[in-house]
Amino acid sequence: MPVPRPDLNPGDPVSRIETPALIVDLDAFEANLRTMADYAAKAGMRLRPHAKTHKCAEIAKRQMALGAVGVCCQKVGEAAALVAGGVTDVLVSNEVIHPGKLACLMSLTGRARIGICVDSDLGLDRLIAAAAEAVAPVDVYVELEVGGHRCGVTDIADGLALARRIADSNRLRFGGIHAYRGSAQHLRTADERKAAIDEAAARAAEFAAGLARDGIEVPVVTGAGTGTFTNEASSGVYNEIQPGSYVFMDRDYADNVADPAAPRFHHSLFVLTSVMSRRDAFAVIDAGLKAHSIDSGFPIVADRPDLTFSEPSDEHGIIKGAALPQLGETLRLIPGHCDPTVNLYDWIVAVRGDKVADVWAIDARGALT
Amino acid sequence: MPVPRPDLNPGDPVSRIETPALIVDLDAFEANLRTMADYAAKAGMRLRPHAKTHKCAEIAKRQMALGAVGVCCQKVGEAAALVAGGVTDVLVSNEVIHPGKLACLMSLTGRARIGICVDSDLGLDRLIAAAAEAVAPVDVYVELEVGGHRCGVTDIADGLALARRIADSNRLRFGGIHAYRGSAQHLRTADERKAAIDEAAARAAEFAAGLARDGIEVPVVTGAGTGTFTNEASSGVYNEIQPGSYVFMDRDYADNVADPAAPRFHHSLFVLTSVMSRRDAFAVIDAGLKAHSIDSGFPIVADRPDLTFSEPSDEHGIIKGAALPQLGETLRLIPGHCDPTVNLYDWIVAVRGDKVADVWAIDARGALT
Repeated sequence: MPVPRPDLNPGDPVSRIETPALIVDLDAFEANLRTMADYAAKAGMRLRPHAKTHKCAEIAKRQMALGAVGVCCQKVGEAAALVAGGVTDVLVSNEVIHPGKLACLMSLTGRARIGICVDSDLGLDRLIAAAAEAVAPVDVYVELEVGGHRCGVTDIADGLALARRIADSNRLRFGGIHAYRGSAQHLRTADERKAAIDEAAARAAEFAAGLARDGIEVPVVTGAGTGTFTNEASSGVYNEIQPGSYVFMDRDYADNVADPAAPRFHHSLFVLTSVMSRRDAFAVIDAGLKAHSIDSGFPIVADRPDLTFSEPSDEHGIIKGAALPQLGETLRLIPGHCDPTVNLYDWIVAVRGDKVADVWAIDARGALT
Repeated sequence: MPVPRPDLNPGDPVSRIETPALIVDLDAFEANLRTMADYAAKAGMRLRPHAKTHKCAEIAKRQMALGAVGVCCQKVGEAAALVAGGVTDVLVSNEVIHPGKLACLMSLTGRARIGICVDSDLGLDRLIAAAAEAVAPVDVYVELEVGGHRCGVTDIADGLALARRIADSNRLRFGGIHAYRGSAQHLRTADERKAAIDEAAARAAEFAAGLARDGIEVPVVTGAGTGTFTNEASSGVYNEIQPGSYVFMDRDYADNVADPAAPRFHHSLFVLTSVMSRRDAFAVIDAGLKAHSIDSGFPIVADRPDLTFSEPSDEHGIIKGAALPQLGETLRLIPGHCDPTVNLYDWIVAVRGDKVADVWAIDARGALT
């Protein structure tokens, strides 16, 4: 059963929001969007923000209105939800093997420019078969392993062979090189992150050189996340960046030591929570494991560094500190990890100051396949 | 946007299911339901299974068809979804402070028997006010802190005062004592769990004796989970048990050293996942942090103790082992923690052997408020 849209209207006080709820502070959010758009423009980089963070067509369209060439997502179901919400350019920055999913992806080609990654002959075989039903050519990127220890071809010769097959197919368009090093995003120092991306960029350059030798044009070398995008942008190898979390930020990203060359982003995403039970030594809040993801550690309490969150259970969390909030009082949690937290909500309440401004659907929430 | 119902029909092979997907093995599931129903009947216990585990009206109704008096849930939104799905007796085993939520709960009283917990005067004030709109009396339980370090009155005098106010209200019905020790469920040895519940039961007995002295009848003393219910059942204090996870089980419960007096439950819940990329040293599967919750540790691979899961990212997981699965091959993960994993899915595919039997809606998925 879909979760009903919260009964909120523009201008309502934030106190009308039933908790737990996901809220976005529009001032911080809009500043984040502008900051990244300006950065990419100045750096001469194509910006293709990752929509796996927000899963929200409204946000994707705002990113594109500020100059993004399109968005990324990780799942065909996400692409379908975003295209249904009016997003016109989506790259599935991931491998898809199941023929049913590939058929679904191809069905979107009439309404949006669609891209996808491959790293295997089987994946490409199935993609070529599925592409018979595509209305428009699909951009196919070869994913290169660049130290992320996840997907991607490890042998450049394999990558060249895949690219050749794509370029020779009359149903597909070679999109370029996908070279994302996810494991570098939360290396804590700027130097560590730079060293990791230097390595990734060198690998991508080697692949690009091989493609050039084979006479295959490389339109795009794409990758990067919120933790590293300044490094990809200055590498001389990448021409497209894919940061996602910058729109919201989270506790884990804030724990990175900032790159002095990187623009600043602000926490715009919060889990609004209420105290539902009070003891002398702690307050119990209504936001537990189903209201925010603790995979990257616990949340912090916005504006209240004196309070700590601990002992989450499915529907509860414990707040400790010298000056505890009272029963019914609300707090704003900054989640440990924004992406899987957003995926727990059907709606995000956009607030400006202490007023509700809008309610946006998280269109691709739960789009797992 | 709601996630579309999977395009599956009874009799379809399991291989038609797009992954990741939540599946329930009906043979194991039905055995679990019968085992707990039989246990409660023999022990003379009222059984009120916790629906926060499955959030599924179909499962709740099956539990009630086997003798459960009703179900529990933790949130008003869950109660609304379950009642909409035809469940006729729901206890919100939790405190609710927000007037809007209380109004929603009262609106359900025309269609189901509704219960709720209180542990504060403010909560009770608001409940009494909201109950003016109730169609039928609401059962109100006083939650007692019994060592769970979460909600509940700590001073029995406070509990007696709340019970007196409930009993004297013409809008409410005193339901009894809610005495759940969540923190005992995963103590690893049966002796530790028994010691914790002995303590909880002694506390509940003390409260019950106080209520008797005050001339307040205690219809129900309720609590217990899958880890401890044999202890509550043999305590002589409780007359109702609330286990939830037994329907599915998970890796964390399986890590408990079993109580020899407890019946056996089987893993019935799995995350079906596929290999989407292959390396020599590992396989990458399509089930990451958005497909199962790692708050209680990593999943294990069913039937393949030689394989290990590690390094989850948002949409990927890494499988290692000597005999790795091939690209496109499926595995079944036993989640670390069933409740927050189920909450990630809109649908659960019921399978019998290697065939799809049914697709059930997870009605209260995402019902956070």
